[in-house]
Amino acid sequence: METDTITAISTPMGEGAIAIVRLSGPQAVSIAGDLFRGKDLNEVDSHTMHYGKIIDPDTGETAEEVMVSVMRAPKTFTREDIVEINCHGGLVSVNRVLEIVLASGGRLAEPGEFTKRAFLNGRIDLSQAEAVMDLIRAKTDRAMNVALKQMDGRLSNLIQQLRQKLLETLAHVEVNIDYPEYDDVEEMSHEMMEQKTKEVHAEVSNLLQTARQGKILREGLGTAIIGRPNVGKSSLMNTLVHENKAIVTEVPGTTRDVIEEYVNVRGVPLRLIDTAGIRETEDIVERIGVERSRQVLEEADLILLVLNYGDELNDDDKQLFDALRDMNIIVIVNKMDLEPKLDIDQVKEFAGDNPVISTSLIHEKGVDQLENAIADTFFEGELDAGDMTYVSNVRHVQLLKQAKQSLEDAQNGMEMGVPLDVVQIDVTRTWEILGEIIGDTVHESLIDQLFSQFCLGK
Amino acid sequence: METDTITAISTPMGEGAIAIVRLSGPQAVSIAGDLFRGKDLNEVDSHTMHYGKIIDPDTGETAEEVMVSVMRAPKTFTREDIVEINCHGGLVSVNRVLEIVLASGGRLAEPGEFTKRAFLNGRIDLSQAEAVMDLIRAKTDRAMNVALKQMDGRLSNLIQQLRQKLLETLAHVEVNIDYPEYDDVEEMSHEMMEQKTKEVHAEVSNLLQTARQGKILREGLGTAIIGRPNVGKSSLMNTLVHENKAIVTEVPGTTRDVIEEYVNVRGVPLRLIDTAGIRETEDIVERIGVERSRQVLEEADLILLVLNYGDELNDDDKQLFDALRDMNIIVIVNKMDLEPKLDIDQVKEFAGDNPVISTSLIHEKGVDQLENAIADTFFEGELDAGDMTYVSNVRHVQLLKQAKQSLEDAQNGMEMGVPLDVVQIDVTRTWEILGEIIGDTVHESLIDQLFSQFCLGK
Repeated sequence: METDTITAISTPMGEGAIAIVRLSGPQAVSIAGDLFRGKDLNEVDSHTMHYGKIIDPDTGETAEEVMVSVMRAPKTFTREDIVEINCHGGLVSVNRVLEIVLASGGRLAEPGEFTKRAFLNGRIDLSQAEAVMDLIRAKTDRAMNVALKQMDGRLSNLIQQLRQKLLETLAHVEVNIDYPEYDDVEEMSHEMMEQKTKEVHAEVSNLLQTARQGKILREGLGTAIIGRPNVGKSSLMNTLVHENKAIVTEVPGTTRDVIEEYVNVRGVPLRLIDTAGIRETEDIVERIGVERSRQVLEEADLILLVLNYGDELNDDDKQLFDALRDMNIIVIVNKMDLEPKLDIDQVKEFAGDNPVISTSLIHEKGVDQLENAIADTFFEGELDAGDMTYVSNVRHVQLLKQAKQSLEDAQNGMEMGVPLDVVQIDVTRTWEILGEIIGDTVHESLIDQLFSQFCLGK
Repeated sequence: METDTITAISTPMGEGAIAIVRLSGPQAVSIAGDLFRGKDLNEVDSHTMHYGKIIDPDTGETAEEVMVSVMRAPKTFTREDIVEINCHGGLVSVNRVLEIVLASGGRLAEPGEFTKRAFLNGRIDLSQAEAVMDLIRAKTDRAMNVALKQMDGRLSNLIQQLRQKLLETLAHVEVNIDYPEYDDVEEMSHEMMEQKTKEVHAEVSNLLQTARQGKILREGLGTAIIGRPNVGKSSLMNTLVHENKAIVTEVPGTTRDVIEEYVNVRGVPLRLIDTAGIRETEDIVERIGVERSRQVLEEADLILLVLNYGDELNDDDKQLFDALRDMNIIVIVNKMDLEPKLDIDQVKEFAGDNPVISTSLIHEKGVDQLENAIADTFFEGELDAGDMTYVSNVRHVQLLKQAKQSLEDAQNGMEMGVPLDVVQIDVTRTWEILGEIIGDTVHESLIDQLFSQFCLGK
């Protein structure tokens, strides 16, 4: 159990109406109380809010006009005492309050340290903690639902059930072997083990099948728009952004932050690749160079290839089709309002199994069909996936794959007549691997690393 | 009095640990209560916080896990009932909660509408309301102190005192004229009016003298770094940014947001102009073109002209000096570690009264002197200005100028022997103008326009 008091700014950085400095730990109330001019925070009831001022102890001057919330352990997010200082939402003022709190005995929280304490103090398990972060980063309602359900313990419960099933089987087999009631105990145990590992294997496989969709829900469908100059790439970009409110996020970088743009197409989050480049020059290939373009294409989960209906298919187009072989593409024949010069049959031939959509983007025609095609590449038929338990986290996927492999080792062993006590080793290993997902059997260094990916103040 | 219930997201947009949807108005508690699964919010005490879930009434599903704060009128920011729904800080989740609140009877607040209600309900006056916004946008501690004091009513009190003085004088003169006790009443009234308008004029002039500094504290000292290629402009930029933690803000634009960078040099906020351009190409003039450069220079309050000690002054440098005549410049002779080729005396001649600082930026030499020189251009001798009442708001400055003019009209009138009842008109007008600063005598359309400059949710 950690015993110092941590603090951080818990609202996003930027101009806003409210910014919060949060404290958690045994000294949370006394540190805030010393700085607060208003009611005596040591005396107030838990879960109450108080108006007053934060005084800089060095100068005796008012540093901020605030509302302070006091929440006492154990009914808090971290199960420790929590104080939240609600400031006017300016960068300087909230930073100054943070500095004063730090000077008065608070320690700057590491990223994710509040959630880590919630985990270490047993309020949530590891997969729930990870869901907290996914919830914050969710780009669409659907992604948020997945995270909310995971946070609610949906995945945890499923994993717990599988582990329980394995544990019971192991116990049962153990007892049977140690205290055989019947002669055919070996055979019965064998049968039971076979049956149960098969059941668990099926469930793990089902979960793994949701992984691709889960990953896309979580990280967005990396989407590149390509095509020759003046085919309408900018129009396509603008149409997607305007029809679907874009979410712009900044990714911290070394010199200047990269801006990523997400649009929500029928619940599928598209992460538009290099949108700035396209908007400025209308030509992704020209702007970022051939080498970089190839990289962009490799990074993409979906390519939107734009052609011009008013122009014949030329060698450039054919080369693009060639470069995109085996990739997930949607062919968009734009400018349907122009005099037709493009041979649609030829395009369809080049497109193969990939959908070909006709549009006239400046007249807002064909947008619905295009959005349907995009959603189809994601849902592949299953339209309402709202109630599924998705696995979206790379760590979970890796562990599930290991669990699956370990179960298959056990099954192969049984087929080959390996003794049950050897098979038990693989099954026990599966139980352990599944435990790592919820943090039951997990190393401290991994926990540190996991929480360090959180944002500050969470 | 407005009677609907307004709602908005009150935390900055972005990833964070906490995001808040705020409601204010008579239905705030009942709207939130209907959506909240937890305690009955209609029954809870004021200023208490409650854990629970927000349920989407359309689907019956959980939309978010939240802490809800209930604050009942009149002891709130708006003097109306306020409910704050603290969500996990994701864009999608907080937007969804907002949508549900909107669908359940809340109206989306206009920018600044919460603060406007605080003003309309008499909790704060207009200059205090404006200070709330300045506080949020403050770029340095000093700027924040100015805003905090204004919010605390420092400027309001001063203005009130001046208005009171004018009002008493007007009343006194009125009484004297109507009920003359002595024969020399006309002369006495004249003397008093002269004396009092002089006092108020002096105070208004003092306030106006703080305006330049106030504006810079509020908006930053627009600073351009110029010089020939390879003199060390990037190094200078990086030195300023690294020595002084930079604040980066985004200014909403049409196609892509402009990023502004502020550094805090000895309490003076420098707004670095076109930092991206300099960082990328090391040559502002080359990158943004001659026309745009001239514009940048015009926009700048301070020019940092960088020269290379290891190179002779050439025609380009001389042209720069020429272009910068009459501007506020600091000449930086960089690369003092190189073999000297620059004629320092010649540079000083060109620089005239402007400071010339020698540096070797890659060896971190001369940085202190440079920062002193920058601070000096701002403070002009008065080093601790921490306790002054600054006027920083353009609207206030305009009104003070009008008030000053109106007082001078009165004074001129008296000198020219205009009858006192005519002079009274100018004095009354001054009283009205000063009233506009604190919102006592102000049009509704102006109020609407003022608050619309606020950020959403405040």
